[in-house]
Amino acid sequence: MEFKVLKKDSQTKARIGEIITLHGKVQTPCFMPVATLANVKTLTSEDLKEIGVEMIITNAYHLYLKPGVEVIENIGGIHKFMNWEKPIVTDSGGFQIFSLEEVKIEQDGAIFKSKLDGSTHFITPEKSIEIQEKIGADIIMCFDYCPKNWANYEEVKTSVELTINWAKRCKESQKKENQELFGIIQGGIYKELREKCIDELEKINFSGYGFGGLSIGEPYQETIRITEYIIKNLPEKKLRYFMGIGMPLQILELVEMGIDLFDCGIVTHIARTGSTLTSKGKINIKAGKYKDDFSPLDPECDCFVCRNYTRSYIRHLINTKEITGLRLNSYHNVYFMIKFMEKVRRKINDGEFKNFKEEIENEWKRKME
Amino acid sequence: MEFKVLKKDSQTKARIGEIITLHGKVQTPCFMPVATLANVKTLTSEDLKEIGVEMIITNAYHLYLKPGVEVIENIGGIHKFMNWEKPIVTDSGGFQIFSLEEVKIEQDGAIFKSKLDGSTHFITPEKSIEIQEKIGADIIMCFDYCPKNWANYEEVKTSVELTINWAKRCKESQKKENQELFGIIQGGIYKELREKCIDELEKINFSGYGFGGLSIGEPYQETIRITEYIIKNLPEKKLRYFMGIGMPLQILELVEMGIDLFDCGIVTHIARTGSTLTSKGKINIKAGKYKDDFSPLDPECDCFVCRNYTRSYIRHLINTKEITGLRLNSYHNVYFMIKFMEKVRRKINDGEFKNFKEEIENEWKRKME
Repeated sequence: MEFKVLKKDSQTKARIGEIITLHGKVQTPCFMPVATLANVKTLTSEDLKEIGVEMIITNAYHLYLKPGVEVIENIGGIHKFMNWEKPIVTDSGGFQIFSLEEVKIEQDGAIFKSKLDGSTHFITPEKSIEIQEKIGADIIMCFDYCPKNWANYEEVKTSVELTINWAKRCKESQKKENQELFGIIQGGIYKELREKCIDELEKINFSGYGFGGLSIGEPYQETIRITEYIIKNLPEKKLRYFMGIGMPLQILELVEMGIDLFDCGIVTHIARTGSTLTSKGKINIKAGKYKDDFSPLDPECDCFVCRNYTRSYIRHLINTKEITGLRLNSYHNVYFMIKFMEKVRRKINDGEFKNFKEEIENEWKRKME
Repeated sequence: MEFKVLKKDSQTKARIGEIITLHGKVQTPCFMPVATLANVKTLTSEDLKEIGVEMIITNAYHLYLKPGVEVIENIGGIHKFMNWEKPIVTDSGGFQIFSLEEVKIEQDGAIFKSKLDGSTHFITPEKSIEIQEKIGADIIMCFDYCPKNWANYEEVKTSVELTINWAKRCKESQKKENQELFGIIQGGIYKELREKCIDELEKINFSGYGFGGLSIGEPYQETIRITEYIIKNLPEKKLRYFMGIGMPLQILELVEMGIDLFDCGIVTHIARTGSTLTSKGKINIKAGKYKDDFSPLDPECDCFVCRNYTRSYIRHLINTKEITGLRLNSYHNVYFMIKFMEKVRRKINDGEFKNFKEEIENEWKRKME
């Protein structure tokens, strides 16, 4: 994998870049739809291709439990399994494992019980790499330890120590050469812990970093403060991946600070609960006022759904629990995000990002539903 | 609407024909996917077009409750509402109404409580036609009364009397000329009641007839016996629509007897519970033996799903409750039925229907899962 910064904004820290993988190029800042179980919920790989998605993220922990990594290895990897030929990232699933109720952390790894069948599993950094190598994504993530209590200094300190130690072991256990391993930075809201984590991970020398342990309950101002601090302490050429965010307004803020990569399950999650992203803000398509609204979900959108179906029809489908409604709304929301990111990159390229950000913020904040 | 019988089989009573509507031609014997709420569950109208579906059926009663017929009227009819330009049938919904627990039958119509909000509704034959005219399908059905107890002679007799009376009123209240009204034949398992119903409906003179009150609990031999009897008593040029059936083996049997039109929600229903139709019979795609099966759902199928996805992947999606799994399996099952009907028509045309029927029956019965 190669990552190049192509242009930097003069007014902000925003930048555009390019990731080159064996499965194709990805333009940054990039939004990755989430395919937790090897599928972006309600959509096919053909849908994603048609939408213009460049990279998706799936979850090693979830795939390890179901269908089991051997199945994916047997068919020749995740790209073949889900019929998606473009770049893929696997999250190691550390975050999901440490969110479980029944989990025990040891120096060597994590012991947990599967929620699916109660079976016990022991995941070490080496095991996590083995799993991710069998899955075969283009970019894989270190097995890190994300603390449950963001405000507990001792727990965060332990998480940083384990995360560094595990990152080394992840790097050393890598056998395949065609996968790029990213580090994950922990350290909570404590600058000195973040700095230590960055320093040690930089000694191992990853080409990209996940920003971990953020947006897990801490005040938003802290998220911003720590994100800025991490970016300041990272070499410019390293790819910056803010994990688990975000919606358009969050993305604008983080792009402005210099983030390159995003993933967020909320975009498709809210689609299934009836929220639609539009150029004028988020709307609740289930509302009565759309009953006779025969305009598209977003009049400024040219996606397959907006060209063919009305708000009235999609409202009807979602309100009557028709799966097709969830699918049409998901398709549109993902399309919206991909077009939104294209615009973000164009605006950075044209030196108009700062104005664009303000315009969108004003538009969206005026029309909050 | 025009219906022409194009060719009759020499060995059986099977026949091929053509329905010509304002929205295009339909070849018979035809299988209509069920779009109860103006949507074939999990599929878009584009999917149906791609599959080669020629006609679908939706339900006036369900659409009357949600989204309300005015919404559909306001956008200019059901074709526009669901973005489907080919022929559409509306079932009047009599069957659904009389299946409710809280329903009262009067000479004038049916009073029932909506399951959605408890509101009270009174549907008369005139009201049913008004609803179906607002919806605007190409073929609409008389508001009939299907008895709950198929074995109760008195109830069946009443149902025939009301059905005849209501059929007259339906015909008289029709205001639109571009919709074809079909009668529905009741009479349970009693030949004399069936005959009376046919005679009276024929006096009103419909161009097609729904076979009602069958497959509602009576022994299968009775279904067959009565179906044969109805066909014998109907003029050959009238279209014969067996309502609510069927799966491939049932269709073969009914086509052999001379049925032209079918609808069946089971094909998509079982798709969502994990049953897949294949040229070798029905399989349960959730079964463990398909875990590492990287062949298509049906190796003899060339549909979009079979060209791009494996049994292993679709099994994984359905077992993890991913909506995309339901969608892929539904797409395939509907495609299977459409191709199956094409083959049925070709075999009738080539004088090979009887052999074909035997082959399929042997194949499917050998491989029952």
